[in-house]
Amino acid sequence: MNFKNDTKPIVCVQGMGFVGLAMATVVANTFDQNNHPLYNVVGIDLPQKESLVEKINKAQLPFITEDKSFAIELQRAVLKNKNFTASTDENLLSLADIVIVDVHLNILKIFAENNLEYNFDRRPFEQAIRTLGRLIKKDCLVIIETTVPPGFCKNVVEPILKDEFGKRKINSTPLIVHSYERVMPGKEYLSSIRKYFRTFAGIDKKSSKLGRKFLTSVIDTKQYPLKQEDYTEASELAKILENSYRATNIAFIYEWTLLAEKIGVNLFSIIEGIKYRKTHSNIMKPGFGVGGYCLTKDPLLALWSEENFYNLNYGLPFSLKALEVNHKMPLHVIDLILEKTKLEGKKVAILGISYREDVGDSRFSPAKVLFEELLKYDGLKCSVHDPYINSWSEVPDAHFIKSISELIKYDIVVLATRHNQYLNIRKRSWLSFLKDRSLIVDANNILDDIKIKYLLVNKIDVIGVGKGHIKRMKNKI
Amino acid sequence: MNFKNDTKPIVCVQGMGFVGLAMATVVANTFDQNNHPLYNVVGIDLPQKESLVEKINKAQLPFITEDKSFAIELQRAVLKNKNFTASTDENLLSLADIVIVDVHLNILKIFAENNLEYNFDRRPFEQAIRTLGRLIKKDCLVIIETTVPPGFCKNVVEPILKDEFGKRKINSTPLIVHSYERVMPGKEYLSSIRKYFRTFAGIDKKSSKLGRKFLTSVIDTKQYPLKQEDYTEASELAKILENSYRATNIAFIYEWTLLAEKIGVNLFSIIEGIKYRKTHSNIMKPGFGVGGYCLTKDPLLALWSEENFYNLNYGLPFSLKALEVNHKMPLHVIDLILEKTKLEGKKVAILGISYREDVGDSRFSPAKVLFEELLKYDGLKCSVHDPYINSWSEVPDAHFIKSISELIKYDIVVLATRHNQYLNIRKRSWLSFLKDRSLIVDANNILDDIKIKYLLVNKIDVIGVGKGHIKRMKNKI
Repeated sequence: MNFKNDTKPIVCVQGMGFVGLAMATVVANTFDQNNHPLYNVVGIDLPQKESLVEKINKAQLPFITEDKSFAIELQRAVLKNKNFTASTDENLLSLADIVIVDVHLNILKIFAENNLEYNFDRRPFEQAIRTLGRLIKKDCLVIIETTVPPGFCKNVVEPILKDEFGKRKINSTPLIVHSYERVMPGKEYLSSIRKYFRTFAGIDKKSSKLGRKFLTSVIDTKQYPLKQEDYTEASELAKILENSYRATNIAFIYEWTLLAEKIGVNLFSIIEGIKYRKTHSNIMKPGFGVGGYCLTKDPLLALWSEENFYNLNYGLPFSLKALEVNHKMPLHVIDLILEKTKLEGKKVAILGISYREDVGDSRFSPAKVLFEELLKYDGLKCSVHDPYINSWSEVPDAHFIKSISELIKYDIVVLATRHNQYLNIRKRSWLSFLKDRSLIVDANNILDDIKIKYLLVNKIDVIGVGKGHIKRMKNKI
Repeated sequence: MNFKNDTKPIVCVQGMGFVGLAMATVVANTFDQNNHPLYNVVGIDLPQKESLVEKINKAQLPFITEDKSFAIELQRAVLKNKNFTASTDENLLSLADIVIVDVHLNILKIFAENNLEYNFDRRPFEQAIRTLGRLIKKDCLVIIETTVPPGFCKNVVEPILKDEFGKRKINSTPLIVHSYERVMPGKEYLSSIRKYFRTFAGIDKKSSKLGRKFLTSVIDTKQYPLKQEDYTEASELAKILENSYRATNIAFIYEWTLLAEKIGVNLFSIIEGIKYRKTHSNIMKPGFGVGGYCLTKDPLLALWSEENFYNLNYGLPFSLKALEVNHKMPLHVIDLILEKTKLEGKKVAILGISYREDVGDSRFSPAKVLFEELLKYDGLKCSVHDPYINSWSEVPDAHFIKSISELIKYDIVVLATRHNQYLNIRKRSWLSFLKDRSLIVDANNILDDIKIKYLLVNKIDVIGVGKGHIKRMKNKI
C-alpha cells in the first residue's frame, strides 16, 4: 500500500474480473482540475486469485483487449501515479470510503427435458457482502454493480450488512446504491464505462446523494446524463430488462432466419431495409448464436425474483424462450450442413470461439455448444481457431488451428465469429486456404455476395445462416 | 370520367380503404416541374361500396383524420384538377397503365383451446386479381401493396394473371411488383406515404424497372431512398417481419409490466433510462393493448406461408405468442381492478376505443376485448367514449358517453387510448369529472405522477398499467 498517508478517498473494487478491473482502472484515472488523481483505488479479490493480483500490480493486463488505452491507463495508475493497487487481503476493505461490488452472482441455466431450470449459487456473492459488513466503516458507501435479481439490494444486501453491523454494535443504516455497468469489451472498453449512460438508485436519500456525487465524478455525465430511479428495485430491474430485450430480439430473428433460408432470400438485405425506419433500428441480424456472461442468463435472475420475492407466476415467457432459442441457435449450423452432406468422419474447423467479434472472451460461447454436438458424430474431428484465444478454458482439450492456411486439411469450415481478421480475408485468399470441393458455412455474415459467388464458381460450396439466396446464386452458375 | 382525352398515364387504385384512398390521393397530387398532375387516378371499389364512391367523388373524406392536408389534397384532385375519380365499375381497369392493389387479404386469428388457429379468406383478394387478369392491358404494371404471405405474388398472383391472360390469348408475362406501404393514419397520414421509406421488388427485371420509375415519381426518394429486393418474396417477407418485430416487442414488455407492478416500480421511468441507449431505443412501453389491421394478424400470414408454400414447421414461436399475449393484454385491466374491488353491478367507462391515439380507427381495437369481457360480470354496465368515433361498427349497441362530464356517474373509469384530449385534462378537471371515491385505471400512461398524487390525496383511487409505484405513493399519503 503506497497511499496510507494520503487524504484522497479510498475506493475498493471487490472482484477483479472483466468489469471490476476496468472499473478500478477508470476510477484510478479520474482526475481533478489540476490533473491530480481524485481517488486511491484498491482492487480486492479472493486469495486463490493471487496470480491475477500480482499481474495487476505489475500493471500487466490479464487478458488481450483491442482497447489500447486500457494498458496505458493501468500502467499510469499502478506505476506512475501509484494510486491503484490490487490485493487478496480483504482487511483493506476497512479503509474504504466507497466499495464497488463487482463480484459474480452466478445463475446457470439447465435444460431438463425441455424445461428450463436453473441453479442459482448465491453463496459467493452473499459471502462477499458479509465480508463487507464485517469490515467496512459505518459510513462507507456500497455500490452494487453486479447484476442481481430485482429486490436483492433491499432483501439480501441490506439485511446482511445490517446483521454484520449489528454484531459490531453499529446502529447506523448501511449506505447502499445499485448502479449497473454497461461495459463492452472491445475497442471502447474503458470508454464504455467513462462515456456512457448510467442508471442508479440509492436505498435511501443519503445513499442516492453520495452515489450521484461519486458517479458524477467518474463518468462524463455532462454528455451522458445519469438516470436516477427512486428505488433500487427499479435499477436492478432495468439492467435485466435491457439485456432480456436484446436476448429476445436475437431469438425473435431466428424464426425469420429459418423462413428466409427456406424461401431463398437474403435476410440481411431485408433487415437493412427495415432498419431504415428509426422505430425498427434495433432489429437484430441473423447470426451464429449468443454468448457471454449476461445475455445468456440475466432473465433467470428476474424469474428467481418472481418466484422468491414477489410470488408472481407469469414466468417471463418471451425472455425465457429467448434463452432456450439462443442456446440452441449454433446447432442450426448442423442442420444446414446435413442438407448438403453427412458429418461422420469429416474434419471440421470452427473459426472464432469468442462470443464477440475482436474480443478474446469465450465465456458461454456458442462455439462450445456446436463443438460438443459435432463430436457426437462418428469419426468427426473438430478443430478451432481464434486470433484472440490461445487456449480454451471451457474446452481445455480442443485442438487449435494456428494458422488459417491449415484450413486446406478440412472438409467443412464454419465461420462463427465476425473477427476483423476473417472479414479482411480476400476472395482469392479464401480459395487458396480452402480444400477443393470443401464446404464453407458462413454462420455470421462474414462473406459478402462477391466472395460467395467467387467461391461457388470455383467449386467451393457455400451455405450461410440467413442467406437463402445462395441457393438461387448457385442455380444461376 | 373526365380525363378520356388526356394523355397522362392512368393509375387505378383497387380498394378505397384506409390505404387505397390515401395512396390514390397522393398519386393524384403528384406533379411535374410545371405543376401539372403526372397521373390520372381512378379509385375502384366493389358495387356494394357505392356510397363510399359517391362521397369520394364529392371530395368528402369518409373518415375523420387529424391530417388537414388530406381533405385539401382530395378536393384539389377531385374538384380542381379533376384527375381523380372513384367508381364501382371494374371495367375502368382496362384503361389502367398501372394498377395499385390495396384490397384486403383477411386472416383472422382464433384462440381455440389455447391453440392459435386462423381463418384465411383468400377469395376476395384472389377475385380482385382475377378481375385484373380479365381486364388489364397486357403491359399494365400491377403493384401489390396489400400485405400478403411471402411467396404470394409468385405462387398466386402471377399464376392467376397468367391464367386470365391465357384465356385472352395474351402471351406476354404479367408485370408485377410488390411494394408495401407504411401508412400511419394520424397527423402525418399522407406524408407517411409520400415522405417515407419504401421496399419493393419486381417479379422480373422489366417489372422492377417500371416499379422503380413509378415509385420514384410519387415518393420523395431523394430523402427516403428506395430499398430494392431481388425477389418479391423478400419484399413480402419484409413487411410481415417488421410488423411481427413490433408486435413481439409490445408483447415482450407485458411480462415486465406485471413484474414492475408487483415490485412497486414505475416501468415507464425504467424504460426511459433504457432508451438512452441507441441500441435499445425501440423498446416499447407498457400499454393497454394492440389493435389495428396489421399488428394483430400479420405473423399469421407468414405461418400460412410456412405451412402452404415452404413446408417449414418451426412455427414462428415468438411472433405467434405475441399475437396471443397482445390479444389478451387489455384483460389485465380487469386483474388490476379486481385487486381493488369487485366488478359486479359497477358502472364502468372506457375512454378511447380507437386502437391508436388521435385517430378514429376501431378495427381490432383492444377496447372491444375489454368491453366484452366486462359485460360478463353480473349487473355491470359499460359505456365508452372516443372523441374520434361516434358509432362503434364492431360493437353497434355500445352506449356512448357524449361528454367527459358524464363520468361523474361512473364507479370505474378506464383510460385506454392516449388521445390528446385525455392528456390535456388538468388535475382539477379530472377531480371535478370523477365521482367521489371512484377508481381510475390508467391503462396507457395518460396521467402523470402529479395528477395521480392529486387524485389520490382527494380520495380518488388510481391504478395504472406498469405503474407499480402508485402503491408506494399511496402509502406515503
